[in-house]
Order: sequence, then structure tokens, then C-alpha cells
Amino acid sequence: MKLATLKNAARDGQLVVVSRDLSKAVAVGHIAPTMQAALDDWSNVSPKLAEVAAALEKGEVKDSFAFDPSRAMAPLPRAYHWVDGSAYVNHVELVRKARGAEMPASFWTDPLVYQGGSDDFLGARDDVPVPSEEFGIDLEGEVAVITDDVPMGTKRDAAFDRIKLVMLVNDWSLRNLIPNELAKGFGFYQSKPATAFSPVAVTPDELGTAWSDAKIHLPLVVHVNGKPFGQPNCGVDMTFDFARLIEHIVKTRNARAGTVLGSGTISNYDRSLGSACIAERRTLEQIEQGKPVTSFMKFGDSVRIEMFDSDGRSIFGAIDQKVVRAG
Amino acid sequence: MKLATLKNAARDGQLVVVSRDLSKAVAVGHIAPTMQAALDDWSNVSPKLAEVAAALEKGEVKDSFAFDPSRAMAPLPRAYHWVDGSAYVNHVELVRKARGAEMPASFWTDPLVYQGGSDDFLGARDDVPVPSEEFGIDLEGEVAVITDDVPMGTKRDAAFDRIKLVMLVNDWSLRNLIPNELAKGFGFYQSKPATAFSPVAVTPDELGTAWSDAKIHLPLVVHVNGKPFGQPNCGVDMTFDFARLIEHIVKTRNARAGTVLGSGTISNYDRSLGSACIAERRTLEQIEQGKPVTSFMKFGDSVRIEMFDSDGRSIFGAIDQKVVRAG
Repeated sequence: MKLATLKNAARDGQLVVVSRDLSKAVAVGHIAPTMQAALDDWSNVSPKLAEVAAALEKGEVKDSFAFDPSRAMAPLPRAYHWVDGSAYVNHVELVRKARGAEMPASFWTDPLVYQGGSDDFLGARDDVPVPSEEFGIDLEGEVAVITDDVPMGTKRDAAFDRIKLVMLVNDWSLRNLIPNELAKGFGFYQSKPATAFSPVAVTPDELGTAWSDAKIHLPLVVHVNGKPFGQPNCGVDMTFDFARLIEHIVKTRNARAGTVLGSGTISNYDRSLGSACIAERRTLEQIEQGKPVTSFMKFGDSVRIEMFDSDGRSIFGAIDQKVVRAG
Repeated sequence: MKLATLKNAARDGQLVVVSRDLSKAVAVGHIAPTMQAALDDWSNVSPKLAEVAAALEKGEVKDSFAFDPSRAMAPLPRAYHWVDGSAYVNHVELVRKARGAEMPASFWTDPLVYQGGSDDFLGARDDVPVPSEEFGIDLEGEVAVITDDVPMGTKRDAAFDRIKLVMLVNDWSLRNLIPNELAKGFGFYQSKPATAFSPVAVTPDELGTAWSDAKIHLPLVVHVNGKPFGQPNCGVDMTFDFARLIEHIVKTRNARAGTVLGSGTISNYDRSLGSACIAERRTLEQIEQGKPVTSFMKFGDSVRIEMFDSDGRSIFGAIDQKVVRAG
């Protein structure tokens, strides 16, 4: 099943079921008024949404209409919890190596996460407003899951079934604001502007065999200004799978329905596959050429992030955004 | 106007207007189904709620009932954005001094904030479940405001009017998890379990002259296990007022309606007033006596946080919680 939220007059938009080929949609407000409402009562609501999805595939739905990804908000337009991991530890190791800092061995066993802004998510085709190019504007291509309620203390084995939906993410970062902010010791805040998500969120079964071990085993295809930038495989070098990340985030608190959990920037040891963020490419340039060559993004620059199934069909629709001057 | 949310079968509870003396309440679901819904449309909704509040004071409301703070959820039971400042910089300076670290001068001009978990807030009388006493269980007595929409780039002068409600906070901390977590560089996560709020949130006008310059000029009265622990004045030594903190949090993003913004632990240079967290008291003991004497909290320990007007009446009702073993 594929779900999206379309822009309307309401803050939480219009929940729709989208066809597998992303061509058609149908409003399902009579089943659940919003994506959050669906997640709040997932065990009752999802079978009803699945019935609509099946009927839509068969062409048996009367009120369907063309699905327009430019009308999509984030599938969950605002969330009560957005926590982003850094599960591709080889990326952390690389960045540290470039600045001559050794990475503690515990980073291979103890996940790193930060909590991000979730009151103002961006839709897949929304412009990305930033006050200044001097902030070091960077994409971060990631995948994310949405959970239902996960009680405090849940272990990895029990966490797999709590994953209800999967999405793509562009976790925008302002690289030049990060050093000052991390030096203060309290983590990211100003250096993490609004995050964007793919047009649709899908249930894990839509990924078929590409979803296993709480990982997606497919490349994330990233283009910057229309040129190929990277296509690292999300199932490779992911040190912590999503179930393990869930165990981490519920050690001392409950995660409630609608928790959005990100993987962190996708990164493979096989550097020939490119990167899912400019910072990593700059780090590789630093190591190989003695200095970074690729610039961070400027106003007017665009990024496209997509994932294809084995038949070359887009699974989530594309995140395709342009950076613009805020205000 | 005073507002609360009472527990019912729904995740977002029942919005009620509460009388000034906290004795009576009346359900206002016909005006706004939830606190978030009220905040989403505050300029239209709040005058209607104010009419009910005025009628309640006059005894002209038929369906009022006794207000029971033990039935209160957090006024906003789950929020899309909870960001906590560290506005009493003297506290940060003190803690750093105790461990022999100098505080950068920029801390006096550049606010420190972290983003906290907001999907699972605690009500004022809810037990506080923690997996282990070894985690170093500590209270943090604070005040917080709730805003409506604040656009990116809003400056301090324009931020005052964005403050719609004021509450008390107990920002629970797990002190022994903090050093490892901050060493990883991404800020707090496991070291910050669910946060608790006062039974009611009030509009700033309810504070009269005690609300000025986007600060509350009253003591926060803290008891631990029934004994006085501290009563620092929230209007004293608050380096950054709430309007300045708002300017900080919208530098690179919008803050959407229902943003909860905390002050950080209240702390005065006048140490005779006591502290609003155990960590500060332990730091003072370290400095004065060579070692910390006061223990962090154990299962069964309780904390009460309250604020009184000039006539000795409780403004927000009391946060009064007991720490229990999780699970």
C-alpha cells in the first residue's frame, strides 16, 4: 500500500491512497482524516486502507484522480517525533578521518541519533528556503520509517513489527553552522532546517524482497542540478538496522505512533557509487586531492532523490527540490 | 484564561477551560476539539474560549465540574516541537566551573537550546517511569511558553506577541547518561526521558505585572520528598528572555503553532534561594564541601513544583510526581 498527503486548506492535508505505479490517487478521509489519525489507530485503519488500495489497483475505485507529486505534502506533514540516526558508521569514520580525529570504537556498537524539527516538514517538490548561501547548504539522502506505538524498553527482536511505513528523506543541513553549534555541546538546532520527504510512504511489503532485516536493499539515486551525484545502496554498510535503532530510541522513553526514524546519510565503503551528501564528497576530495572541490548548494540549485525497483519503476516518487532565498 | 486537557479515551484528551482559582472546569470541545486545534487557529478560537472563561468566573456556566489536577494530561499532551533553552547562563557557568572548564564568553550572547521528545509528555501528577536508579534521576524546574506560528527570521521585537500560553515544566534528566551522550557530539536523547507540565497553561495576562519583558517575575517553588528544595525567581538572572529565545529558534526554520519553548533550569546567583535541580545543588556542594552530598532521586521519591501569585494562590496548579521503576 502507498499513502500520500495532498495539500488542501488544512495543516494536515488530505490523506490519499496512491496506486502502485504512482499514477492515481483516491481520497480516504472517510477512513482516516489524516495520516496521523491513521497511525494513531493503525491496526484498525490499515486493513481498510489496504482494501481501497487493492480496489484502486483493479480499477474499481470511482473517485480516483491523477496523482500529482507537486501537490504532495510530506506523507506525515508534521510529526510528534523525528529522530535521525547516523547508521552508516563508515560515513562518520570518514568525516572524522578527514579532520584527523579518531572515531571511538563504541560508535560501531552504540548508535548515534539526534532529534530534529518535525513541526514544519517539506513536501517532495517544495522549495527549500534558506536565509544565506554562506550557511553551507547541503542535502542528505536518507531513508526513514514510521512506527506505531513502541513501549519503552522494547528490544530489537520485538521492534521489526512496529515499522509501518517507509519513506525517502532529504535531511537538509547547514554545514557551516554545525561546528559552532556542536561546540556548544547540545547538538544540532539551527544547522538543521526543515526536512523533506518523498511524495509517498509505502508499507514495507511494497518493497518485496528489497525489504529484509529492517533495511532497504536498493540504491538511493541522487542527482544534483540534473547530474548523477551518487547511488549508494541502502542495504550495504548500514551498521544499525531500523529495528536496532528503535531499540536505541526507546531505552528511556516511549516512542508514540507516528514516530519518524531516519537512517542518516546513506554511505557505502565502495566510493565509486558516489555520495548522498556534498559533505562526504568534499571529504573524499580533501583526502584524495588535498582540498574540497565541490561547492555546497547555491540559490537555484536543485536536488533529486529517488529509488527504483528491480523493474526500474520509482517506488516512492522523487524528492525534487530547489534551494531558494528565505523571506 | 486558564486551559487544561483532561484524560479521556483519546490521545489528545479533552480541552477544558479552568477557573482562575483552579476549582472548576468546563469542557470546550465544541469550540476546539483539542489544545492543538485551538493553537492551530488561535486568533479565532481564543476569543471564544475567553468568553467561556469569563462566564465561568461569574458562575454562569451550567456544565462546570470540579477541576481535578490528577486527571490532567500535559496542557498540550503531545506537541510537534519542544525546544528547551538554557537561559539561566549562571547555571551553565557554575556547572562548568565545578568541573574546571571555562565557559566561552559567547554563551552570554548566543543562546543554548536542545530539542526534546514531545510525543509522550507527562501530566502533572503522572508517575515518572525510569528503567534504573543508576541513570542519575534528576528534576529540572522550568517555565515554558507555547507559541502560535512564528515565521523564519522573526526578530525579538516581533516575537513577544507570538507567546500565547505559559506553563511550568519538570524537564526530567538522567544525569549519568549525559556525559557519554554529549561526548558523542549529537546532544541529548536517552538522557532526556518524558517531560512533565503543570496541570494548566495560562495566557500571559493571567500573570498580571508578574509577566513583563517576556519573563515571569515570580519564584518557582520546588519541594523534594515534601521538603523545601529551592525557590529561585524566574525573572532574575534569566539571560535570554522568551522573545530572544524565539528569535534564536527561528533563525533557519519556521516554528509552527504549538511550539513549546522552555527556559531551562531556573537558577539565581543568590544561592540562598536554593536550586531547581539536584545537579546544581550537587555542584554547589562540590565547590563548598569538596564533594556532592545530595543524592539523585530513587524510586518512590517525589517532587513538587509550583508557583504562587502575590496573594499566595497557585497559578498553574502543582506538578507533583513520583519516580517509579519502568515496566
